[in-house]
Amino acid sequence: MGWMADEAGLEKTAANYVPLTPLSHLRRAAHVFGDIPAVIYGNHRKTYAAYYDRCTRLASALAGMGVKPGDVVSTLIPNLPAQAEAHFGVPACGAVLNTINTRLDTDTVAYIFEHGGAKVVLVDTEFLPLAEAAVAQMAGQPPLLIEVPDPQAGFEATGRHPAYEEVLDAAEHDFDWIMPQDEWESLALNYTSGTTGRPKGVVYHHRGAYLMTMGTVISWRMVMNPVYLAIVPLFHCNGWNHTWMMPVLGGTLVCCRNITPGAIYTAIGDHGVTHFGGAPIVLNLLVNAKEEERRAFDHTVEVFTAGAPPAPATLQKIETLGFHVTQVYGLTETYGHVTECLWKGDKWDGLDHQGRAAIKARQGVAFPMMDHITVMDDDMKQIARNGADQGEIVMRGNSVMKGYLKNPEATAEAFEGGYFHSGDIAVQHPDGYIQIADRAKDIIISGGENISSVEVEGVLMGHAAVNLAAVVAKPDDKWGEVPCAFVELKEGAEVSEAELIAFARETLAGFKAPKRVVFQELPKTSTGKIQKFELRETAKSL
Amino acid sequence: MGWMADEAGLEKTAANYVPLTPLSHLRRAAHVFGDIPAVIYGNHRKTYAAYYDRCTRLASALAGMGVKPGDVVSTLIPNLPAQAEAHFGVPACGAVLNTINTRLDTDTVAYIFEHGGAKVVLVDTEFLPLAEAAVAQMAGQPPLLIEVPDPQAGFEATGRHPAYEEVLDAAEHDFDWIMPQDEWESLALNYTSGTTGRPKGVVYHHRGAYLMTMGTVISWRMVMNPVYLAIVPLFHCNGWNHTWMMPVLGGTLVCCRNITPGAIYTAIGDHGVTHFGGAPIVLNLLVNAKEEERRAFDHTVEVFTAGAPPAPATLQKIETLGFHVTQVYGLTETYGHVTECLWKGDKWDGLDHQGRAAIKARQGVAFPMMDHITVMDDDMKQIARNGADQGEIVMRGNSVMKGYLKNPEATAEAFEGGYFHSGDIAVQHPDGYIQIADRAKDIIISGGENISSVEVEGVLMGHAAVNLAAVVAKPDDKWGEVPCAFVELKEGAEVSEAELIAFARETLAGFKAPKRVVFQELPKTSTGKIQKFELRETAKSL
Repeated sequence: MGWMADEAGLEKTAANYVPLTPLSHLRRAAHVFGDIPAVIYGNHRKTYAAYYDRCTRLASALAGMGVKPGDVVSTLIPNLPAQAEAHFGVPACGAVLNTINTRLDTDTVAYIFEHGGAKVVLVDTEFLPLAEAAVAQMAGQPPLLIEVPDPQAGFEATGRHPAYEEVLDAAEHDFDWIMPQDEWESLALNYTSGTTGRPKGVVYHHRGAYLMTMGTVISWRMVMNPVYLAIVPLFHCNGWNHTWMMPVLGGTLVCCRNITPGAIYTAIGDHGVTHFGGAPIVLNLLVNAKEEERRAFDHTVEVFTAGAPPAPATLQKIETLGFHVTQVYGLTETYGHVTECLWKGDKWDGLDHQGRAAIKARQGVAFPMMDHITVMDDDMKQIARNGADQGEIVMRGNSVMKGYLKNPEATAEAFEGGYFHSGDIAVQHPDGYIQIADRAKDIIISGGENISSVEVEGVLMGHAAVNLAAVVAKPDDKWGEVPCAFVELKEGAEVSEAELIAFARETLAGFKAPKRVVFQELPKTSTGKIQKFELRETAKSL
Repeated sequence: MGWMADEAGLEKTAANYVPLTPLSHLRRAAHVFGDIPAVIYGNHRKTYAAYYDRCTRLASALAGMGVKPGDVVSTLIPNLPAQAEAHFGVPACGAVLNTINTRLDTDTVAYIFEHGGAKVVLVDTEFLPLAEAAVAQMAGQPPLLIEVPDPQAGFEATGRHPAYEEVLDAAEHDFDWIMPQDEWESLALNYTSGTTGRPKGVVYHHRGAYLMTMGTVISWRMVMNPVYLAIVPLFHCNGWNHTWMMPVLGGTLVCCRNITPGAIYTAIGDHGVTHFGGAPIVLNLLVNAKEEERRAFDHTVEVFTAGAPPAPATLQKIETLGFHVTQVYGLTETYGHVTECLWKGDKWDGLDHQGRAAIKARQGVAFPMMDHITVMDDDMKQIARNGADQGEIVMRGNSVMKGYLKNPEATAEAFEGGYFHSGDIAVQHPDGYIQIADRAKDIIISGGENISSVEVEGVLMGHAAVNLAAVVAKPDDKWGEVPCAFVELKEGAEVSEAELIAFARETLAGFKAPKRVVFQELPKTSTGKIQKFELRETAKSL
């Protein structure tokens, strides 16, 4: 402990201690990069000066609506300018940003409104019916809705709620941002996909997001004025915090409403996109794009991919197209990526495509802002680094959540022994690189979205004809994985595959509903536990 | 203030809160970059694994000698491997690193030993007589000396004290680093050059140095595995914290004992140096290097320069040689550089050499890790940003010192009004860029008119025969003060006093042109900063 014998007068003061917050990046950028393009979406082009002004007015408007520091403001918006503005404007009035997945069902959205206690919700016109239905269904004080129309995409304002631009127009340009007085204050609230039961509300602090942005600059080899295409949804870990990072580099954020191969290539061709992140499915889109969708470009585009290792065939094809792919790994609880498969050029550049893909399949090593990420056994002992022994990925560092909102028990459990427990099972190679052996078995990752098999099973079991249901991942060319259900019917009962899928869709978001249903007796252990590994094998060959 | 209504269970824990410290960079690098070259000095070549091991053994050895957390360990070493190792090894045993300027006199070194309370001093053999004389002269408990010989440069161990390598050999490889439990703990103690009275001991904290390293990566456009040449002495603001930064990028630190043009070009040619920092005099060395000292290279070398604006003529020449120069500005009290003349390519790339030099003469805008740096008047009000009104540069942010050791009064004065007061007088341009008009004492007041010595020097440096120029006030019966120039000519060049005055008058108003020109070698500090106070003394007697 480096306390000197005499530290008189060496305490923290306003001059030498300023709480860390990503808000500081935009305040600086408004000054340093004032005339540089900050956000582009079609004909919406804003400089840093204008972006800062719009965020200031959003903060002012929210404060004017009675939003107080510590209150929650939710959003249901695709990756569009208003969603980016909410990342600064909401905390700039002291509030906590709760970005909600636009693909969720009404029931879950209503639960999130209730549990998070949203005071205001910014809603894209396309998702207004979802928000309204959730408000109608929820208990407790309903939030105020602000409609964010997108006329460029044909979503004109309905007029049923205050419209975003009018709200900004009426707000103050000189609203004083409410900066955190303690960097541990809450910045954002992100609900997990709820692998077991209800989703949990993950709370981020200002310090963690600030350090996440600084570490990502290093890991992603970013220099001044990158051009970033927002593909990772901002409602997933706040888009891995990339929107908060851009201003520190004077980077340009390019938005597009629908992620299609044509849209991505156009963004690269028209705006010179240098960086984007996305699930491996995005890489597949690019590799399989039609000739007329492609655009030539002569720079290297840096890509972070996460959710599953990129397939060797995809990697081989995409790297010759001018994309440099790095696998990263993390969870909602860790602000997004906290490990990276850091490429050691001098050792690995000479490998053939199979060899490169084998390395790139690893989740890798800790990001710079993390303290310790490793694989431990059940007794929290380091496993042997032999590429064979398995354990759980555990992590400690400043980009780990504060905890789960109103759930101290789950928080304490997640942090047992001084590490965050990822639930992911992995091996560790002799060079320390981590590689996931078997995804936490109950999770199906479809198009980058986590689906809880337990949740889907629960819904299927609710059907009158169903005795038992087990849901596993079935490999899928387009989505990576899709849910596949194995169902034992009750004696004498009858239901068709199509009927059961339709039944599931009544409750579940479309992407969570099983794409295949197989009727059979389920294989079980002697204790009656369903042997899912067998079903996974069967699903592969369906 | 973003505290949510219910924050139960959301407190800091070991899993989500780790004190910031640059030590973490080397711990991570030992794992992530284990086999990458970390430090090179002639035949001394160490990987990150070996560097980490040597720092660990240094920490172990110091602890074994009775150094306790919070104790001070000093060094009197040029920019050599042991000096770099001290940056990690000393704090790794919980101690505070006090790097001492090797050019100081015995009296001042004795004062620093006494005032800082050094328990151990690591001393390069060349400076052993200085350290021994200081120990003999000081009052109080004398420190233990460890001799660091440099046989490669002909400095063999004297045998009068324990030798560094033997001390390391006897130490433990598995010593557990003592990491800060609070990021506000003291990391380093740096004495100011003390232009008035005794030097003051500036105390750095772990948090500030960590954030300095993260911000510098951004400002210096650094990506993985840079090669850094240590020119800025590590005894000045710990070399602007660059040694602490290198491991986060897996960078290679290249050391050289004597900074000569040949040594710099050789390092670039042999090791592919990508970055270095230095005073403008270093740029002059490179521009004026003899043909046989030069080496060809085909990459751009990024250079941070500080201490004075680079002269237009120097800039013009050096940029065609493959160096990209950015002026930065800061003080010992701010861990080194905290502003940068951030180059806006789209606006400024088209300027001619004069125009580029005029921009590059600015000290610029705040680094990413600083909160607010601006120019204020005596009432601490923002001055007009018109490039004309003058005020004092003040700064607030996380890379500002804890304060002055055992000097709460000076600390309180420096931090008055919640900002650190630099004492530097500047204007601010409409785009917010700060430009030092002059240190208050560098302004020459002639017949009631302010003359900027920087401006006059810039003009003189444009003359083909001039290598370096320094302009100071000479007392004058009629005008109060008049500008007096001291000029170092290039090797073999000739110009008369009258010719140079006439040359200055071509550009400058008559009252700004020097009234006297003295040809001599200019007195410099160890960083290459010209010691104007000496010249002022000389000018008085002319």
